[in-house]
Amino acid sequence: MGTDMTLSPLAPKGGFPTLPVIKGITFSAVAAGVKYADRNDVMLACAVAGSTVAGVFTKSATRAAPVLDCQEKLSVTLATDKPFAILVNSGNANAFTGSRGSGSVSAICQAVAEELNTDQACVFTASTGVIGEALPHDRIVAKISELNASLDANSAELAANAIMTTDTFAKGAAREIMIDGQPVKIAGFAKGSGMIAPDMATMLVYIFTDAKISQTMLQTILSQQTETTFNAITVDSDTSTSDSLMVIATGQSDAPEITTGQTADTFTAALHGVMLELAHLVIRDGEGATKFVTVKVTGAHSDASAKKVGLSIANSPLVKTAIAGEDPNWGRVVMAVGKAGEPADRDLLTISFGDILVAEKGWVSESYTEAAGAAYMKNDAITIHCDLGIGAGTSTVWTCDLTHQYITINADYRS
Amino acid sequence: MGTDMTLSPLAPKGGFPTLPVIKGITFSAVAAGVKYADRNDVMLACAVAGSTVAGVFTKSATRAAPVLDCQEKLSVTLATDKPFAILVNSGNANAFTGSRGSGSVSAICQAVAEELNTDQACVFTASTGVIGEALPHDRIVAKISELNASLDANSAELAANAIMTTDTFAKGAAREIMIDGQPVKIAGFAKGSGMIAPDMATMLVYIFTDAKISQTMLQTILSQQTETTFNAITVDSDTSTSDSLMVIATGQSDAPEITTGQTADTFTAALHGVMLELAHLVIRDGEGATKFVTVKVTGAHSDASAKKVGLSIANSPLVKTAIAGEDPNWGRVVMAVGKAGEPADRDLLTISFGDILVAEKGWVSESYTEAAGAAYMKNDAITIHCDLGIGAGTSTVWTCDLTHQYITINADYRS
Repeated sequence: MGTDMTLSPLAPKGGFPTLPVIKGITFSAVAAGVKYADRNDVMLACAVAGSTVAGVFTKSATRAAPVLDCQEKLSVTLATDKPFAILVNSGNANAFTGSRGSGSVSAICQAVAEELNTDQACVFTASTGVIGEALPHDRIVAKISELNASLDANSAELAANAIMTTDTFAKGAAREIMIDGQPVKIAGFAKGSGMIAPDMATMLVYIFTDAKISQTMLQTILSQQTETTFNAITVDSDTSTSDSLMVIATGQSDAPEITTGQTADTFTAALHGVMLELAHLVIRDGEGATKFVTVKVTGAHSDASAKKVGLSIANSPLVKTAIAGEDPNWGRVVMAVGKAGEPADRDLLTISFGDILVAEKGWVSESYTEAAGAAYMKNDAITIHCDLGIGAGTSTVWTCDLTHQYITINADYRS
Repeated sequence: MGTDMTLSPLAPKGGFPTLPVIKGITFSAVAAGVKYADRNDVMLACAVAGSTVAGVFTKSATRAAPVLDCQEKLSVTLATDKPFAILVNSGNANAFTGSRGSGSVSAICQAVAEELNTDQACVFTASTGVIGEALPHDRIVAKISELNASLDANSAELAANAIMTTDTFAKGAAREIMIDGQPVKIAGFAKGSGMIAPDMATMLVYIFTDAKISQTMLQTILSQQTETTFNAITVDSDTSTSDSLMVIATGQSDAPEITTGQTADTFTAALHGVMLELAHLVIRDGEGATKFVTVKVTGAHSDASAKKVGLSIANSPLVKTAIAGEDPNWGRVVMAVGKAGEPADRDLLTISFGDILVAEKGWVSESYTEAAGAAYMKNDAITIHCDLGIGAGTSTVWTCDLTHQYITINADYRS
């Protein structure tokens, strides 16, 4: 846990949303004492036989044992005649724990499979917390009967709370769409606050839907939508060893199977909406964050180039500290564009903060006033728009500011 | 100026070193009121006719006007029958100032050339400070006679002080070598504290020597040695628009010309020593720094791969905040190795803090104790050594910790 669990000032006002029940999905949570005392730290999610599963994971070269296990299991076509389970613990990442790490994963998967009468290949796990300490998996195994006994379709919020570490609020999002006149629901939750950077599926995210959809199609849509949602956010440029994003589709909706064309577009848009909302909530709970920052890059050589420039701005400590200080220091934005290593021409660059044109044609705009810039920076949501003026590439990424509280949390944190 | 100019705790105890006089080089400084009141903010360095000049500069796509001017002038073989001059101002970077930026550079170069009876092609400038404000070059031009009148071979420290911005101390270094029984001297100074990251010649660095050496050879040696000195340090991963490193050789030593073989090796080693010492001093004055950190990577796929892994560790906010908190959080080092995108195998990784073996073969070392790690982290110089165990590539980079003071300086700084 962080040193200060004050609710993020960017937390949504309404608290955790009421998520719709997803037919075929149940949740439970329990206090296993993995590390934290007096709080739930293990969650179990179960999906009925016939469900399909997809996932994306961190690309870190030092991936945690549960990530390697999930990736291996998802590399083949999964059976559809058995129930699926996801078990997640907080307080210990089971990362860089040598051969004991995979031993812990096996022990947990075996116990869950036995309890739920399914195959170990249908059980996925994740662990989040401190790196390099042996996971006391016996404490988790001892609680699996209790987890099974308390499974409930209405317990998503309980599950979302159990997987938090430095998070100051649980993050949930949902969408409901109509396919051929029949409702299809998507609901998910996420945890994540620090060690958040792209090139991954950020932190732990679990999304559930009652859509009928094949494993292949679900994986394809998920992978595509990750690039513009979870892979487009950054809190601190540091990439976790444990990032996992999984989607389970139970097929329990009365809507027809999602294959191609209009139904696929509708489902993809709704899934994208849930993913983006959860990604934004992770930024809103960024360690020490006081500003929600959107960085929009247009006119770049390509979309990929625009994203690199966007992330160069979003990861710049000098840009992020300026935002924390409510300083419209657009010179640092110029610096961050310059260091990105992407095609750019100083004299074609246009920079806006919100609707305020700040700089154009290589210099400060004639209409810009420092007073207008300073007033804009007092908002708790800031949009920085850079048009590079050399092409048609665009990208949007999201970040937060870099504050004293980030230092306080991380200069003595061992979750 | 920063909000708190307390001397860095990592500043050398002895203050600015006594630099040897370099035959043929003189310095002066003056208060021109570019931005700061009541302090010198412009320095002039002059070199006699017959000198040779070399330089390396930022690779930023949004380079400042003086940088573009210097690069253009150094792209050809320079005349050797005229004196050279370097004029530097602090308080304003003359960066992102459109066509007015190059106009200011021309006005200054013309005035200096007239005053010193040389060509504009022999006059180099640099500007450091806030980005995006027009440089009031008239204030500088008005002081050029005064600068010329006060030129003195003993005024290097005065010049080094005039170019500081958020620096808390002036940085100087020197070496003396014997070539064929004759002394050759090298002396230089640097400024830099924030917006320090590789892929450049970091910030402003000026080195002077009385060696006899051709422009081509001087440039070759300088470019080579930059990679392991100024391009191997990082304060905050942000790359300046103004970074400039120049060397002037006056040829006034009685030693023979430096060409190839032993004399070149001796000179290169001495120049490398001055460059590395100045680069380390920049880290020791890193904004908010309380720890001097050496990151050594061995056993990598290649030297280039080792450097990427080293910089991934040195630029990680989570590693840097852990060091600030004196937390031996080697799990964050594992994370930073993992996110570097370079070949690495979790189970072959060996990590040491100083002489303490922390982790090996994918897990914490049997001999490691948290008490030993915590005691080591209290030192003000920390060495992190990662052996990747997969090849022969090595690299060493240097950085500092990330502290509250960095946030304080940058959340409301406009130098």
